[in-house]
Amino acid sequence: MARTAYGYITPENLALFTDLYELTMMQGYYNQSHNPTATFDLFFRDLPPNRGYMVAAGLEQAIHYIETLSFGERAIDYLTEHGFDEEFLSHLATLEFTGDVRAFPEGTPVFANEPLLEVTAPILQGQLLETVVINQIGYQSLIATKAVRMRDMVRRHGDGQSLVDFGSRRAHGSDAGVKAARAAYIGGFDGTSNVASGELFDIPIYGTMAHSWIQSFETERAAFETFVDEYGDESILLIDTYDTVAGAKIAREVAAEKDVDLSGVRLDSGDLTALSKEVHEILEETDIFISSGVDEFKIREFLTNGGIGAGFGPGTALVTSTDAPKVEGVYKLVAVERDGAMQPSMKLSTGKVTYPGAKSVRRVERDDEYHHDILALQSEDCNGAEQLVSVVEDGTLVYEFPDLQSIQEHAMRTLSKVPPTVRKLEDPDSYDVRISPDLDTQTSVLRRQLERQLT
Amino acid sequence: MARTAYGYITPENLALFTDLYELTMMQGYYNQSHNPTATFDLFFRDLPPNRGYMVAAGLEQAIHYIETLSFGERAIDYLTEHGFDEEFLSHLATLEFTGDVRAFPEGTPVFANEPLLEVTAPILQGQLLETVVINQIGYQSLIATKAVRMRDMVRRHGDGQSLVDFGSRRAHGSDAGVKAARAAYIGGFDGTSNVASGELFDIPIYGTMAHSWIQSFETERAAFETFVDEYGDESILLIDTYDTVAGAKIAREVAAEKDVDLSGVRLDSGDLTALSKEVHEILEETDIFISSGVDEFKIREFLTNGGIGAGFGPGTALVTSTDAPKVEGVYKLVAVERDGAMQPSMKLSTGKVTYPGAKSVRRVERDDEYHHDILALQSEDCNGAEQLVSVVEDGTLVYEFPDLQSIQEHAMRTLSKVPPTVRKLEDPDSYDVRISPDLDTQTSVLRRQLERQLT
Repeated sequence: MARTAYGYITPENLALFTDLYELTMMQGYYNQSHNPTATFDLFFRDLPPNRGYMVAAGLEQAIHYIETLSFGERAIDYLTEHGFDEEFLSHLATLEFTGDVRAFPEGTPVFANEPLLEVTAPILQGQLLETVVINQIGYQSLIATKAVRMRDMVRRHGDGQSLVDFGSRRAHGSDAGVKAARAAYIGGFDGTSNVASGELFDIPIYGTMAHSWIQSFETERAAFETFVDEYGDESILLIDTYDTVAGAKIAREVAAEKDVDLSGVRLDSGDLTALSKEVHEILEETDIFISSGVDEFKIREFLTNGGIGAGFGPGTALVTSTDAPKVEGVYKLVAVERDGAMQPSMKLSTGKVTYPGAKSVRRVERDDEYHHDILALQSEDCNGAEQLVSVVEDGTLVYEFPDLQSIQEHAMRTLSKVPPTVRKLEDPDSYDVRISPDLDTQTSVLRRQLERQLT
Repeated sequence: MARTAYGYITPENLALFTDLYELTMMQGYYNQSHNPTATFDLFFRDLPPNRGYMVAAGLEQAIHYIETLSFGERAIDYLTEHGFDEEFLSHLATLEFTGDVRAFPEGTPVFANEPLLEVTAPILQGQLLETVVINQIGYQSLIATKAVRMRDMVRRHGDGQSLVDFGSRRAHGSDAGVKAARAAYIGGFDGTSNVASGELFDIPIYGTMAHSWIQSFETERAAFETFVDEYGDESILLIDTYDTVAGAKIAREVAAEKDVDLSGVRLDSGDLTALSKEVHEILEETDIFISSGVDEFKIREFLTNGGIGAGFGPGTALVTSTDAPKVEGVYKLVAVERDGAMQPSMKLSTGKVTYPGAKSVRRVERDDEYHHDILALQSEDCNGAEQLVSVVEDGTLVYEFPDLQSIQEHAMRTLSKVPPTVRKLEDPDSYDVRISPDLDTQTSVLRRQLERQLT
């Protein structure tokens, strides 16, 4: 079978994970000696339906990509075959990022039009980054947000139930599987079932058993007995293969017979709220874990209807963010060097206007709650706490990435400051993001100037 | 920065891309010397909303995984740290797949409950595969299906418009980016903008230019001129940065001035149908390419309203299958060796019943159209053409994977045989999948037998 049959994206071919037009433009910039410094903003023009905020995530992966970016032999060979010029490819082969990056720290709530990432670099470099940074930051932010919505429901209606990502098999490919686990952890999850994510990101891993274990034995009782023989007190038994209530009784008998305190039982089908109560009657001291179709709405329903559970295992809904499977991150040129100075830039495309210029995001709190943000020019004097931190300067990493645990703590702390009406699961209020006077003026002036050129 | 900051799934850690419970169960099977032969079916219990069929895809990746699966040092070290037994891990370190796999060829329409993949192997091996095979086949089938829906609209309402995947940046991670490109190609696309997919899977790559190219020059005209200087007749100019109609006129002037026949212009915002007609008035001989929010519904609307376009570049809607972002593939034990013979097996979990036993899928045609399928026991004598082919026997690959082009041709041929009412974009009819007499009897008998055990 060919080397590429599985189709891995690895350090060897990651540089090719880009849209062809980025390389086409880069060659044009190179050959035409047009390489001005440019500033690009990565932002969400609109938030997905029923999202009053998004949680920033994926920065570490985006920066790692930027810092280690390189076109090796395999990439250069492919581009040679596809007609790129030798001289441009020689330049590409030695390309390194020499610019600046500012960003929202991971785990921080962000709102529409706020730059999650701002890149200032020679346009040839800045252009190339577009595809990967949107891909990584967009997806992880989508999932961190979905995770936070679930954790928020547990915080409001529950008593510290655990949340574990069970979604790998339904994620959109293997990268989504591991990145969802990471993003979910940022969003307040306790861990993942995905072993590779555990190894890659040092996330706690959890697991129980599948129906196939039960079915592979002649009886459910024999299956439970064998598992308990193997795992003792650590056993979590899946009790819904044939009949959940009957399964709970057998689990109780097996635990008694083998003299173990089960770590728990798992319910994976049926009316989970009602069944959890019935099972609790039978297994009073045993933790009940809930899987199957779990999302933030199901968690709320389960908890507010008196369901009894020690933890939830969301899967598909988490890793595909099923109710809102996309967030349209864009990476737009907002300023470009002209005659030796940075000039604001924008496009006028219908319905797709961007705010020009390098920016500052100021967040103003009142009574320990976020009150409003101000989207301003970077140079502007403004109230509120600056949200963007400097991550890379002149190509050098100047930011110390927090460990995931710290990012999670930051996410939980900042989540508490998002107004409850903005955190609503359905029809949340819009958070107040104000445009600063200078940014507003700059936008109007530039718009008029561009419109004049049209006539 | 740590080696794992980007978090790649590579041959080195792919074996860990599994749910912890698979390994927990495998250790249990191993230590308890319980390793019967088992048959697992991968199938979709229900098709997603508004899907009358799914197109099978991802088999080659799933099989490559199965055939090359290995736990290397890095994986074994991690599992050692996480408390797995040394003896079991020694076994794991030498594990190779020795079983059989049957499957639907890629590009074939499949329906609910039909096994896309059937694995028969010692349970310890068969169990491990679950996470990756669902992940790869589930996602690629979802996207191949989405792509086919778009190609189907072009076949019905258009005149051979090209379709190019522009979705990488909005895909759920990098693996989704490249696998979406592959699946879209299977589903009738002409190519992708993703360079890595081109290199990995030998898919044609396409690209134009971004708004940033335009904005980086003082005027749109200067931007067009410079691009045309670089790329001549191959230029495709993006004309909506400031005003689409004005952009078209400038493009015409630049083409005349530079004496080139533009390869095309791209529209990326506004009322695309109306604008395409206006632009066609200005640039009669120039191909118009349409991007921005393209999906099968937009394509239908554009073409039936007389929009003028030579090609479409679907992005987010394609790679996230936005209207149906999940398909719940399951991998269920359907038979297990007991007393030396394979016995059918099923669970009774509410709403999640499976058909027991190794199966055959027969497809019956009438007048060159699919009429009904029969889901039967593998051993049963039945009408219709067998859909499952043997792919791996005793661990050895016995199937020659067609190249992607051939898979696409197969997909286009078989799509034409799916009844039009089943192919409808909204509220499609259910295709008739019949349960064979023997499978029906076996299901009822086993169900009664299991229910008797409960009482």
